[in-house]
Order: sequence, then structure tokens, then C-alpha cells
Amino acid sequence: MEVIDSRVTYDVLTLGETMVRFSPAGYERLGQSRTVEMHVAGSESNTAIGLARLGHRVAWLSRLTNNSIGRWIAAEVASHGVDVSHVVWTDDDRVGTYYMERGAPPRSSQVIYDRAESAVSHMRPEELPSELFCSQAARVFHTSGITLGISSQSRQTALRAIELARGAGQLLSFDLNYRSRLWTASAAGEACEPVMAQSDLIFLPIRDARPVCGTSSSDPAEVCRELHLRWPRATIVVTRGNLGAAAIDLAGTFFEQSAFSAVEVERLGGGDAFSAGYLSAFLSGKKTADALRWACATAAIKYTIPGDLPLIDRSAVAALVADESQLGSAIQR
Amino acid sequence: MEVIDSRVTYDVLTLGETMVRFSPAGYERLGQSRTVEMHVAGSESNTAIGLARLGHRVAWLSRLTNNSIGRWIAAEVASHGVDVSHVVWTDDDRVGTYYMERGAPPRSSQVIYDRAESAVSHMRPEELPSELFCSQAARVFHTSGITLGISSQSRQTALRAIELARGAGQLLSFDLNYRSRLWTASAAGEACEPVMAQSDLIFLPIRDARPVCGTSSSDPAEVCRELHLRWPRATIVVTRGNLGAAAIDLAGTFFEQSAFSAVEVERLGGGDAFSAGYLSAFLSGKKTADALRWACATAAIKYTIPGDLPLIDRSAVAALVADESQLGSAIQR
Amino acid sequence: MEVIDSRVTYDVLTLGETMVRFSPAGYERLGQSRTVEMHVAGSESNTAIGLARLGHRVAWLSRLTNNSIGRWIAAEVASHGVDVSHVVWTDDDRVGTYYMERGAPPRSSQVIYDRAESAVSHMRPEELPSELFCSQAARVFHTSGITLGISSQSRQTALRAIELARGAGQLLSFDLNYRSRLWTASAAGEACEPVMAQSDLIFLPIRDARPVCGTSSSDPAEVCRELHLRWPRATIVVTRGNLGAAAIDLAGTFFEQSAFSAVEVERLGGGDAFSAGYLSAFLSGKKTADALRWACATAAIKYTIPGDLPLIDRSAVAALVADESQLGSAIQR
Amino acid sequence: MEVIDSRVTYDVLTLGETMVRFSPAGYERLGQSRTVEMHVAGSESNTAIGLARLGHRVAWLSRLTNNSIGRWIAAEVASHGVDVSHVVWTDDDRVGTYYMERGAPPRSSQVIYDRAESAVSHMRPEELPSELFCSQAARVFHTSGITLGISSQSRQTALRAIELARGAGQLLSFDLNYRSRLWTASAAGEACEPVMAQSDLIFLPIRDARPVCGTSSSDPAEVCRELHLRWPRATIVVTRGNLGAAAIDLAGTFFEQSAFSAVEVERLGGGDAFSAGYLSAFLSGKKTADALRWACATAAIKYTIPGDLPLIDRSAVAALVADESQLGSAIQR
Amino acid sequence: MEVIDSRVTYDVLTLGETMVRFSPAGYERLGQSRTVEMHVAGSESNTAIGLARLGHRVAWLSRLTNNSIGRWIAAEVASHGVDVSHVVWTDDDRVGTYYMERGAPPRSSQVIYDRAESAVSHMRPEELPSELFCSQAARVFHTSGITLGISSQSRQTALRAIELARGAGQLLSFDLNYRSRLWTASAAGEACEPVMAQSDLIFLPIRDARPVCGTSSSDPAEVCRELHLRWPRATIVVTRGNLGAAAIDLAGTFFEQSAFSAVEVERLGGGDAFSAGYLSAFLSGKKTADALRWACATAAIKYTIPGDLPLIDRSAVAALVADESQLGSAIQR
Amino acid sequence: MEVIDSRVTYDVLTLGETMVRFSPAGYERLGQSRTVEMHVAGSESNTAIGLARLGHRVAWLSRLTNNSIGRWIAAEVASHGVDVSHVVWTDDDRVGTYYMERGAPPRSSQVIYDRAESAVSHMRPEELPSELFCSQAARVFHTSGITLGISSQSRQTALRAIELARGAGQLLSFDLNYRSRLWTASAAGEACEPVMAQSDLIFLPIRDARPVCGTSSSDPAEVCRELHLRWPRATIVVTRGNLGAAAIDLAGTFFEQSAFSAVEVERLGGGDAFSAGYLSAFLSGKKTADALRWACATAAIKYTIPGDLPLIDRSAVAALVADESQLGSAIQR
Repeated sequence: MEVIDSRVTYDVLTLGETMVRFSPAGYERLGQSRTVEMHVAGSESNTAIGLARLGHRVAWLSRLTNNSIGRWIAAEVASHGVDVSHVVWTDDDRVGTYYMERGAPPRSSQVIYDRAESAVSHMRPEELPSELFCSQAARVFHTSGITLGISSQSRQTALRAIELARGAGQLLSFDLNYRSRLWTASAAGEACEPVMAQSDLIFLPIRDARPVCGTSSSDPAEVCRELHLRWPRATIVVTRGNLGAAAIDLAGTFFEQSAFSAVEVERLGGGDAFSAGYLSAFLSGKKTADALRWACATAAIKYTIPGDLPLIDRSAVAALVADESQLGSAIQR
Repeated sequence: MEVIDSRVTYDVLTLGETMVRFSPAGYERLGQSRTVEMHVAGSESNTAIGLARLGHRVAWLSRLTNNSIGRWIAAEVASHGVDVSHVVWTDDDRVGTYYMERGAPPRSSQVIYDRAESAVSHMRPEELPSELFCSQAARVFHTSGITLGISSQSRQTALRAIELARGAGQLLSFDLNYRSRLWTASAAGEACEPVMAQSDLIFLPIRDARPVCGTSSSDPAEVCRELHLRWPRATIVVTRGNLGAAAIDLAGTFFEQSAFSAVEVERLGGGDAFSAGYLSAFLSGKKTADALRWACATAAIKYTIPGDLPLIDRSAVAALVADESQLGSAIQR
Repeated sequence: MEVIDSRVTYDVLTLGETMVRFSPAGYERLGQSRTVEMHVAGSESNTAIGLARLGHRVAWLSRLTNNSIGRWIAAEVASHGVDVSHVVWTDDDRVGTYYMERGAPPRSSQVIYDRAESAVSHMRPEELPSELFCSQAARVFHTSGITLGISSQSRQTALRAIELARGAGQLLSFDLNYRSRLWTASAAGEACEPVMAQSDLIFLPIRDARPVCGTSSSDPAEVCRELHLRWPRATIVVTRGNLGAAAIDLAGTFFEQSAFSAVEVERLGGGDAFSAGYLSAFLSGKKTADALRWACATAAIKYTIPGDLPLIDRSAVAALVADESQLGSAIQR
Repeated sequence: MEVIDSRVTYDVLTLGETMVRFSPAGYERLGQSRTVEMHVAGSESNTAIGLARLGHRVAWLSRLTNNSIGRWIAAEVASHGVDVSHVVWTDDDRVGTYYMERGAPPRSSQVIYDRAESAVSHMRPEELPSELFCSQAARVFHTSGITLGISSQSRQTALRAIELARGAGQLLSFDLNYRSRLWTASAAGEACEPVMAQSDLIFLPIRDARPVCGTSSSDPAEVCRELHLRWPRATIVVTRGNLGAAAIDLAGTFFEQSAFSAVEVERLGGGDAFSAGYLSAFLSGKKTADALRWACATAAIKYTIPGDLPLIDRSAVAALVADESQLGSAIQR
Repeated sequence: MEVIDSRVTYDVLTLGETMVRFSPAGYERLGQSRTVEMHVAGSESNTAIGLARLGHRVAWLSRLTNNSIGRWIAAEVASHGVDVSHVVWTDDDRVGTYYMERGAPPRSSQVIYDRAESAVSHMRPEELPSELFCSQAARVFHTSGITLGISSQSRQTALRAIELARGAGQLLSFDLNYRSRLWTASAAGEACEPVMAQSDLIFLPIRDARPVCGTSSSDPAEVCRELHLRWPRATIVVTRGNLGAAAIDLAGTFFEQSAFSAVEVERLGGGDAFSAGYLSAFLSGKKTADALRWACATAAIKYTIPGDLPLIDRSAVAALVADESQLGSAIQR
Repeated sequence: MEVIDSRVTYDVLTLGETMVRFSPAGYERLGQSRTVEMHVAGSESNTAIGLARLGHRVAWLSRLTNNSIGRWIAAEVASHGVDVSHVVWTDDDRVGTYYMERGAPPRSSQVIYDRAESAVSHMRPEELPSELFCSQAARVFHTSGITLGISSQSRQTALRAIELARGAGQLLSFDLNYRSRLWTASAAGEACEPVMAQSDLIFLPIRDARPVCGTSSSDPAEVCRELHLRWPRATIVVTRGNLGAAAIDLAGTFFEQSAFSAVEVERLGGGDAFSAGYLSAFLSGKKTADALRWACATAAIKYTIPGDLPLIDRSAVAALVADESQLGSAIQR
């Protein structure tokens, strides 16, 4: 299968913040050991890495602090084949971090964000690499609601990037990625609404549909139809965790895909891997039902990998997609 | 909720031995790696730590060897907010240790005790801090059958402490904690009988009721009733592992609480966390049914934490207690 | 029970290659961490270790590179009580290695073999310790299809050893151990056929019966009967993974044993442990049904132990065999 | 020797910020491994821990974020016997952090501070525990220039604490602790001048005397005399790294102490250990020459201990002080 | 300073093999621990990484096995900014490895090579990326004697690359890098002679000058003059370990540079870092004396970094070069 | 060189206790990390391992607890080629342990012994394997003063073993190995005197000569002469740490050997390695001067190896012995 379009430089551009995550080993609590794991973690760089490992040409746009921590983030993202040469470097700001203690039921995982005043929170629209916003540069521009929620400056930058991408005829892919620690559901809904109205592809977890988008139902088919009425020009993909995912296309056709069963080694990054899988299939010309299946398979394999990054192999995803014995099956109603 | 009674110095005094546990990582066997985990482990200090983390003022009484190992034990216990200033220090004796290889079914965990001649085994009644045995010093005195079983000297010391606590009007909380490597069931039963006869609160696993206490049934309600007839002045709490717990109060009313489902990261210390949860609820004025629920919730969260110590947060326990969706429900028959 | 026959020097001789396995920790992918686990791994040395830990006198024959890696392999095998004094040492060849990334479903474990041109692949028949091939030296000679598949030289050596063992009146135990990375099923079948025709004891996984041995059924009883017709002088033992094992004896009687349920910590080495358990029971004079039960119990305990080696205790295996509550039950039809 | 004055509750109060330090293992660079060490690090808590381990009663005043990170800092400090019950807790602010890559010559160690907007930077004067500022509460109040440099709010709080301590008749101990990443030398000099003018005990490295305090010489005796003329009511102690330390007392007598030779395992925290050693000797009634020797010995032992904390034993320090064979010798000119 | 020439795509192309190194931690012997460090190690990729981190555009040419190990090597090299897009991938061959036990005097470090039949050993001339061998593609082509010594096939490939590079007008940089485990000194001398005769820049350790190049003296000035007579069109750089380095330029002028004193954390990779430092200075237009100083400074900083890779920062190297207090001084005789 | 005498079964028998040592990593203090290293450590098993690795046939006699800890000790000793089949196993006693915190100057290493009531402390003379005490079984019997000092029972066992060995015509090698934590110098001197009077070979550190043996001088030549007068039938070897060693033979000739300079990675086990080196040379027929040089070389290499065990290679020791450039030179006065 051909996964690359040679008429453009990049298949996908992504824009977003990447942080350092600190986690104690296994199910330890912070302070139990003198060592912690240090992970690179960012929604849009995760998706970029997933796409690169699936065979696509991807550039990740961001702003990073020019110190050992920032350079390590760039090195890690680059090592998986993502082009980081367009990242903006600053000497002034900090690298955002967060702490995560893994919980096992009934103890929930605990996250402590420490991301205020990060380099991306101070990213300005004029720092965007304007040469990438033309039709030969990329087919798809992808970002998420996090970039809109970090700060008013990052929101302006994201909105400007979206405007430029749209102007250049690039397709717009948007992952709602609502974070309650960043802003309220209503603020997120208000800010993201105009972006989703312009999007060609929208990803959102079904649990956020009601609080952020104001849908009235919790049934996936109903949710999809309500969202389709609001944003008829987008394919809308709704993730449902262990229940799989659903989508509605421009024609209003509803698709469902059950999840592939997976041993969950690390849940973080699953949604970003899902988006990578969907976008990869989409870029390869697959239909919505197939793309949903690719997305669920990519997420399932991610769940088995420690850390936030989707360290997947295309062959393994393809094998899972093709495996008839797997529960996951695409249903078109 | 007010968890502290300001009219007393401590909510609870506990007395007991704390050892060092050595365990290989994960499911390794001893000798597979050149490093082993080193844990602080002691029933009564575990309960003290649980209580301190739940917001209570607790002092832990013990005897420790004045070397790096003994001081590390004290530092670890103190770090969680337990007062260790009444610990008796000795230059003469050793710190008890044990080795534990974690098994996975069908391979059982293997424990090798190496606790003979420890500092607590040589603790004498006159080493007890007499100033703590008055009504203003503490509301509850808590110890366990282990302290009675370690040596005749530690037994005399525990019995003297119980006598002093009772004389001072402190409530007596006793955890049977039968250890077959320390003594026979009949010896334990004989030694603990007079203590349980004086106790206000008794904890025991249902599996020990028959061999140690000589009950005739294995049904929790029956067991509780039999024990109530013998020790009518105590609230008796029976733990049932994955099946939850039961209790009978002074009025002979029987209570049952199913367990909260939990991923078991480390089972050790679960019973001590249970006692801490019960005592915390009791000290806060909760009724028996509520206290059982607090005890089961505290134990459930402990199971998810590596090591013996109940590194719990009060807010997490409270949230679990309040969670209607959890299976655990108090039933009064 | 007496497990040793004092009239012979060794209960069992095994011959085969042992490699070094590199694995990242837990479910990590290669490259995620800068450290990897280093394991000793070889089918016949695994079986030898299992037998030694079950109380038997065992010698392991092989060829090792005389460097730190080869000597480490010998030291590790010797540490469990296996006699390695008959190993042939060479300055010329390399130690075979392989890399293994543990997968969690749906991500499968990935193995990268790097075993070409190893010391055993260059082992010559005349390097066999001829003094061991007499009736007083050993009761059983055990090897596996891997030794036949590594190279033509190792195959000639294995065939010569089998010839010598048979000539000396030693019983021949053969584990098919088909490895698709080494050779095709038909090549393996062709090469192993004459060995199995001479064997007293044959172990094979049921999944290999059809491709390698050309059986027509997938039903264990049918498979056993077909194989019995071909090799009537052998007891044939068929392993079925989580479904247990089956056997057919010289009289054509069929036996079945369900598996003991086990938490799988590491699957590698399970088949070798199975053979060790079977051989141990056989050497101790147990009947086929009992030997099957010992084999399944030994494998079940191995699954709970990290690494390839069966670091089992005889007492634990015996206790599991004797445990009536376990699902595993021997059925004679 | 009696190290505690029973007429006061605490021998020393210290006030300051404590952060988390992240460091890769050994001489690794950030990103080489997926794990980093996590240390508790704060000048005034280090000194408090040193004093507690030397046998004194110490309380540490600070402001901490009420999350797992802040609570871990408090637990660690408390574990060494420091009273942390007067710490102010906040739900609003972050815990300051820094990254440190250890360098070996000629590669220097690299520090990346990330401490802006920390809990202490927002500490207000009215959050000081007023009950501690009376003559029965403590003999000495100790803080450092860092507390004055973090933010204007922390400076006001430190100045108010100094005012209260002085008003209560407590002795004032001040460690200049100039940090060029926090403020300029001239700003530090201006802000610290009025504090040093009120101090009874001043610690400063000789390298900071000229830029911060404006001395004209680099000879320790000259430096001491210049500083004595400015702050005649203080004993002034000047540290000289590997060359030892010097002091001048109220009478203008100059003292010198060479350093004890030490293998440097970790340099961080050496100055704080020095202050702890000096204060301990001072509190025990030792003369200036002896106190200098105690200070150098405490610092020398700290250098051999990984991490920032002075995990010293009083007996080891005392033995080193008493060791005639050591180079360090007090010279009074 | 401008380090990049914008008229060419790459400043430097390097060609060579990169392996995986396994080492136990610290000074452990193999087998003491169950974990080993896994390092990426290759002379020409090391030099490429050093150049990239010093600010140059570099591509690394090689042949890698298309499995997790080969891809990890590429990812690691790419993460430091080296272009790996021209690497040739194969499904057929293995990744070369070696084991290294670090020794401390008088125990020497032990290396066990296991590199036969690696992917590079089978690299064919026609696999070279011909598009890179033109004047616009690169200014310098760099390889080493190792590439000539691995196999006859890799030698032919290296010679063909050199021929192409020379034909395209690229400068030829050659590091002798004699390895006695690969071939004899005379074989190496014979094979490398024609390459050195065409080189513009030659690096060699002084200890190899006599056995490989047949010089008669051990004095650096003499050695340089002898080599200059043989290869007058090259600048010849001779490394002398702790004694520094020397060079002779096209005009026959001799230069000397003493070493910068450094704490040796890991010696491996020092020579490759030296070459990177020299080439960087050369590319930036520096004179021979300055380039020697840059080379020694880069090597000194590398010695302080664990692993084979020169994880250097340009600013640190520049600061060391500029540091007058450092012993290293350039002398022109 | 032939190192084995084929007329006897073993070259050397050693008898002694082996313990488990717990140490934190590097220079950490106990409690700083949750993991500790676990080492096998015993003077006589160390010497046995050294001899086996130098090519000799050795059996180690001891008494071990039959649990995972005891079996691990035996496995570790056996892995290096020592015969452990004569070890006596007990179900009743504990494995002795000790804790060791490594210090760096001026902080000394701290040892906490916890060895009372160990399996060897209860070893009885009748548990000795009588079949080994004949002239065909072994040439040398080796034990140390520790075995005499552990308990009166172990002393009786050691004395009986010495009596048996002497009766069988075996040579007696005795290492004084004075441990002040076990007994006083005078008690040790009194107990060891009769053993040394019968010894053929005596090892002792020069620092113990005065307190334990009552010599009057501290000059090595003088010490040797004084000891020679007392025990004229023994070759007496005196170790001097960094200053090397000295010896006096039966003829009263004095020998001196300076130490080989070594980077000290771990000092523990150096003396035991020294004895192994000396005995190995002696068994190979070397003269006293050569044996001293072998002993010093073996110890020097041991110092560079982590842990207590002399994980040496014969070739490395031989190379060091033969290295003329090394400082160590034998002087015969």
C-alpha cells in the first residue's frame, strides 16, 4: 500500500505542546523510590510519531525551551522520524511538566499538572512557519483543543494556524481533547466551536459530547447525528474507550467499530494513537469503516506499550486489522 | 469532619514490632537479581501510619536497635506523621527481618522469618513510657497477637501495657493477627483469650476463628454470635478477604460489608490498613456499619500500593466510601 | 520418594545449545531503556536444570565459546546443580543470542534470532564425551529437534550421540521442539523422523503434529493414535498449552491431563519444564498418568517465574500435584 | 555533651524554600536514561536536617503545595527529626523544581532552575506562625539570602520573620547563599545588607564577599576584617571550599580552619551542612575555633553522601573533629 | 560563527558500521547482574553525531538490518540531528554486537567482538546513494579504516565511495582506526595506503604509526614529518591520548596541542569525538592550530560522558577552547 | 602450567561460614533507596572461589540453612566451580547476615553484623564429612580464625577438622582473619595459637600481629622473625594493605613484595583473594617469592571487582604477575 503522497512535502502537520511527565515505577506512589520515570508526552507529537511510524511524512510544530529538557523532547520526537526542524526555540520560558501516579482500581491515577508559563503558552502567531501553509507543503493540518486551552496566546496562534491551513487548502483535523484542569467545559465548547465548524475531521470522546458540545443523548448514534447536524462538513469520530468507536460521515452514514481487546500496560496516549491510526488510513485512501478499524487497532496496540508514545509497527497494526478472529468488527447501520 | 479529639494528646497508641522485609523484584526468586527491595513492615506501625494519614494523632511504641537499620525504621514511620519519640532504643539487640518471594498462582508466596532475638523480643514492661497511660494521653490503645507471640518478655510487656491502658480508661483495640510460624493456634488462643476478654474492639480473620478461638461454624454471622457470647463487651470485627468483613456490636447486632473490588498490587499490610480504617471511622464517631465500610475501603486502596505501608490519602478513601456504584454495601440483618 | 538411581552416575544426559537472551524490562520495546535483561536460555539446559532441581543427577553436554559470555552460561547452569564438566570449549566461535520483546495481547512477543555460526553449530561428533555413553553412565539421553536443526554439523553430532546412547542401552528422550525460524516443517519432519522412530519418549506440541509429523487430525486422542501407529515403541506425550497435555503409552492406552491454572509471568521455558517434570516422574517410577500430572504441574509453576529457567522447588511441585482442589485431573479413557 | 537547651521548645527555627531536584544517574546527560533521581533540596531544610541529626530540636518554616510532591518534601524532612508541623499548606501554587546534570571536569555541572511561582514565592508575612516568635520558643532563627531573593513577597516574609525573631530575643543566623540566577550581586547586596547588620552569625562564601558585599581583598583575614568593621555585632564565618573556612568574632579575633580532605560524592548541600555543624557547636557552647572545626567536619562528611541532604551521624562528625591525624587544624593568629 | 555552508546540502557525509554494545554496569563483570547496558556504537556515526551537535548538517551512510535493533540504531543516531534517510535497509543480515566489561587498573577492559556477517559486512558498492556524490551534496566525505577491514565487500564499497567522493570534488577525511581484532597491522597498512594517499585529512593514533604505517620514530614531530613525506597532499593529525595531539599541514608546518585534563567517565568514542571537533573547526574555516585545540576540547568533554556517543554541547566545547587557564596550549615550532 | 595434582580429588578443602551481605548502591546510606544489593560473602568460600577460578579443584565445607537464602549461597559458590556437595544442610538455623554502608573518606564504611545463631555457629564436629580427611582426598586444608570465633561449637568443629586433616597428612593453611566484633584480640590469640603452631602456612595482616600475636615490632621483617621463632614449621605471610606483603619461610628467609597499584572498586574480599593467589602458586610448585607476587596480583585484581567474590581470570592474574612494568617487585634480603 502506498501511504505517502509524493506531490506534497508532508502528509500531516501537527501543532501542539509537548511536556515532560514524571511517574514513579509501576504502581508506586511518589516518594516511595528515589527514581522516577521521565516521559515525553504531548497529544499532537504523539499523533505525529504514530503517523511517522505508520509510514507517513510528518512535521511537528511547537515551541520549546532551548535547554537540555527541551532539546531532549525534540530528539525523542525526531528519533521516530518526525521532522522537528520547524520547532521554534526560546531561551525565556520553561518546559511544562506533569506528575502521574499510576493507580490500580479502586485507586485512580493521580495527575498533577505543572504546565503554566510554558514555552507553548507564550507562542505567538507570527512564530508560525509560514512556508508550511501552502498546498504543496502538506495535505492535513492537525491540532487539538489543548492548544486552544493552554493560554490566550497559544489559542490565537492555533487559530491563526488553522486560518492559514484552511487558506492553503489543507484539510483540517481537530481532536477536541478536553482537559478539565485547563478550562471549563463551557469555555472549551465556546472556543472550539468555530474550529470544529471548519474541520474536515473531528475526534472527540463520547463522554465530552454532552458537557462540551451540549449534545442531549449518550447513545453513540444519537450523538453522532446531533453533531452531524451542527458540523455537516466534517467526518466526526467518537471514541468510546473499551466500547470502541463510532463515526458519521458527510453523507450522514453512521459507522461503528468495537474495540480490539487489549491488555492495558499504559492507557496514556491511546487517544492520540487512535487519531494517528485514523489519519493514516484516511491518507491511504481507506473508507470510513476501514479507517475506524485502523484507528481502534492502533489504539489497542498502543495500550500495550509503556509510556505515552505510540511505539507501534505498521506491520503489527495491519496484521491486527486483518485478523478476522478479533472481536472488533465494523458495522454499518 | 473532625477526626481529632483535642482533649487528648493522641487519638491512638499502638505497640508492636516492626521489621525489615527483603523481597526480590516482581515475581523473581531470591538470587535471580543482585538487588532486593527493602521494606519497613510491622502490623502496629502499619496501622499507626494508616491512622496518621487519615488525619489522626498517633504514637507508636516499640523497641528498636540503635543502628542504621533501626533508625531507618523509625524515620520511615515518622515520615508519615506518626510520633516515634516514645520508642525505646537499645544497643544490644538485632532488628528482626524476613524474606518474602512473591508467588503467582499456583506458586504461593514464600516467607522466611528471621526475627528471633529482636529488640522487641527483649522489651521489658518497665520500658513502657508510663506517662502515656493516662486518660489525657490517648483515647485508644491498640496492639496485636503478634506482640504476645514474639517472646515471653514481649508478652509480659504487652500485657502490662494493656493493664496500664485499661487502668487509665483508654479503650482497648486488639487485632488477633495469628502467625502460625510464631506459635500454635492453641497457644495463641490461650494467651490472647484474657486480652480479648478485656477488649473494646477485636479484629480477627474468619479463618482463625475456629483454630484459635474454637468457634464451631464457618458462617460469619454464626462466628460473630459465638464470639459475642464469649466477649460481650467488645465490638468484634471479622475479616473475610475478598468476601469483605462482618461485625457484631455490643447489642449483638450483626453487620456485613462486602469487599470493594481491587487490583491486588501487594496484599501485605491489608489487614493493618483495615484496622486503621475502622479505628479512624470509630474515632470520628461513625456507626458500626459505616466503620466497616471505611475499613473495607481503606484495605481496598492499600491492596493497590506496593510495600506493606498503607500510603493512603484520606480523600481517596472517603471518595471510595461514598461511591454508590461500588459493590460494597452495608447490610444490617 | 527416591529420585536417584545409585547404580548410574547420571540419571539424565542432555545435549543442546544454550544462548543468551536479551529482553527489555516488562513490556517495553527495545530502545525504550538503556538497560536490557540478559537471560541464559536453552531447551536442553532448561530441562537439565529442572531435573537437577527436582533432585536428579544430570549432565549437560554442549559446546561453548571460551569467553566471559560462554563461561557465564556454564556458571549459571552449574549453579542449579547440573554437571557442566563435559562441556566442550572453543576459542573460535560465537555464543548464539536472541532478542525478545514481550508483547501483551493484541501485540505479540517479537523474537529476533541471532544464532548463526554459534559454537554448537560447529560441534563435531568426535567432540562428544565417549565415556558417558555406557550403561553405567546414565539412564536417559535427552535432546531436542533444535539440536538437529541448528546446522548440518550439529545434526550429525546429535545423531551420533543418539546412536551412542542407544548402543549403550540408554533410553532415548526426544523433544520435537520445532522452530520455524530454523527450518521448514517438512525438513524438520524428515530429519526428526528416524530419531523419533528410535525414541522411548517423545514430546511434541499438538500444533506441530500436523505440519511436522503429518497427522491428519487435531483431536489429541486421534493425534496420539496416529503417532502411536508410526512410533509404537515410544511413549508419546502431546502438549496442548492451556488445555493441558495427553499421552499414549506403548500399549496404546491414551491419557489426558488438564492444565493447572497459572498466572503467566513468563511463558518461555514452559515446555522444557514440562519435559523435566515428566522425566522426573518417569525416573522415579511413576505411571504415565502420574507423570503427565507432574509434567503439567512443573510447567504451571515455571510459568510464574521470570526468565527461561525452571527455578522450581520439588516440594512446591509435589504439593501442586497432590492438590485435589486443582482443576488438573488425570483421565484414563 | 548536652546539645539541647530544655528551657526552649526548639534550638533553631529555619525558614526557606525546598524544591525537588531531578538528576540523571551518575554522569549521564538528561535523556540518556528513562529514569531520573528525585531529590529533596532546600538550603534551610538541609541545615535543619543536619541540626536534627546532630541532636538538636529544630522546626522548619516554609510554604508547601498540598499535593503528593509537597507532602513528600514534608515527609522527607520530617523523617530526619525536623518538626514540620508549622509549614503552611496551599492548594494554589506549584512546587519549585530544578534539573541538575552532574559534570566531571572539564564539563561543568548544568543546572536548570524551574522555580518561578512556587508556594514560597507567594508566602505572606501573615502566614508566619506567630507563636514561635517568643523567647521560650527558640534560641536561634536561621534563614538565607535565597529566601530574600525568590520574590518580593518572600522577601517581605523573611524580613518580617527576622523582625519578629529579633523582637523575641532570638539570635539571628544568616547564610548569604548568593544565587546569580535569582538576582544580581548588587541587588542581593542591597537587600541583605540590613539583615546582616542585625545578625549574630553570618555565613558567606569568600567568592561572594567582593561582588555582593563589596570587600576589596581576596585574603580571608582581610575579608573578615573588612566585614567585621561593617557588622561588628556578628560573628562572621567565611567558607573557602577546599581551603577550609575562616571566622572573625565580636572581638575581632580571626580564626582559620583548613578543610578535612574528603572524596566528593556530591557537592550539593555542603554549605548547608557547614552551617548546621557550626550552629550545633555554637548551641553546645563551643568556642569559635571549635565551631569552625565542627563546621568543616560536618561539611566533609556531607560531601561523601549522595543527594542534597546531610545524612550525617553525630558520632561520625565528633570522631572526625577529634581525629588529630586529620589535616584540619585550628590556627589562631 | 557560521558553521554551515549553505551552498551544499550536507557539510559532511560519513560511511561506516554501527553496532550494539552490551556492558554490565560500572565495573561489574558479565553475569554479576541480570541487566546490561545497551549502547549504540560506531566510529563514523559517532563522528556524525558530534558534528551534528556542533551545528553541522551531516548524513550517515550505512547498511542496517530492518528489525527492532537496526531501527533503534537509526533512531538513536537520528535523534541527535544526523540525517539517516540514506541508510540502506536489509532483511537478511544481522546487527553486529560487542560486549565490553569495564576494567579498572590493573584489570584491563575486556572486549568480545561479535560482528561477523553484519549488514555492513555485506554492503555492496551499488547500494551507495549515488545522488550524494556530487559537489552540491557535501563538502567532506569521511570514513575510517574499520570500514575497510570489516569484509572484502565493505572494503570495495568504501573504496568505491571514496572514488565517487573524490570524483565529485568532495574532500576526503580518513580516520585510520586500526583494530587488531579485525586484521593484522600489515594488512591494514596495505589496504589503507591508497586511501591515505588520496586523503585531504588523515587521523591516526601515534601508537599505530609504526606498526601500520611503518614509521621509524615514536617522536610526534618525527612521525608527522615521515608521514608528510609519504602523503604530502594531506593534513595529518596524530592523536597521543593523555598527551594531546599533533598535526602537520600541507606546508610541512608542525603543530602540537596538549590534552585538556579530564575525568574519564568513559573512554570509548573519544577518538571519534576528536575527529568531529577537528572537522567542525576545519569546516568553520579555522586554522590547523585552532582545529587541533577544538579537537582536543571535544574529546576531553566526551571522556566525561557515559556511553560511546559524543553528547556534547557546542557552547561547552567553545568555552573550553577559550579557557586560557586550561593547560592545553597550541605550540608552533 | 599444571595447576592440578591428579593424584588427589581436591587440591584444597576450605571450611567456614558464608553470609549474605546487604549494601545500598554506591555511597548511599541505608534507607536512601528502596533497593539494596545482596552479596554472598564468606572468607573461606571466597578463597575457594578464587582457587577454582585459578584452575584448582576445591571443595567448600560449611553448614547452611535449607531455605532459599541458604540454597542461593550454595548455588553462587558452586557456579564458580567449587564443589558444594559436602555442605551440611539444616532446617533449624538462620543464615547469618550483615549490612554494609560504603563510606568514602573521611566517612568510614559502616558494618552491622547480624550473624548470631547462624547455621555454622551450630555446626558440630560429627557433621564433618569424614571421607574427605584422607591423603587421597586433598592436599591442603584451609580455614580461618573466623570459624574459631563464631561460637564454641564452630570452634570445636574447626579444631576437629584441623586434627583430622593433620592426621590425614594434609597441609594446614590458616588465615588469622581477626574480627574485633566477634571476640577480643587476646581471646583470638589464645584460641588460634595452637592452630598456628600446627600450620604449614599462616596468613595474617600486620596490624593484627601485635594485638593478637603479641609481637613487639611493627616492622615487617621484625614481625616475621618474631613469628618465625614461635611457629618455625610454618611459612608465615604478612599482608600490609597498600604496602604489599611479606613472608618468612621455614629457613627463616624473609621476602617482600610491594603491592600492585589498583583502583579500589571494592575492598571486601581482598585478603581472601590474596590467600587464593598464594595457595594457587604454592600448589603449582612456585617458590615463596613468586607466590607472594601471585598473591598480591590476585588481590589487586580483586580490588577492581564489585562484591566480595574474587571473580578473577587466571590469564589476567598471570599477565599482571608477568608485567615487568608494574611496581610490585620481589626483594629477597
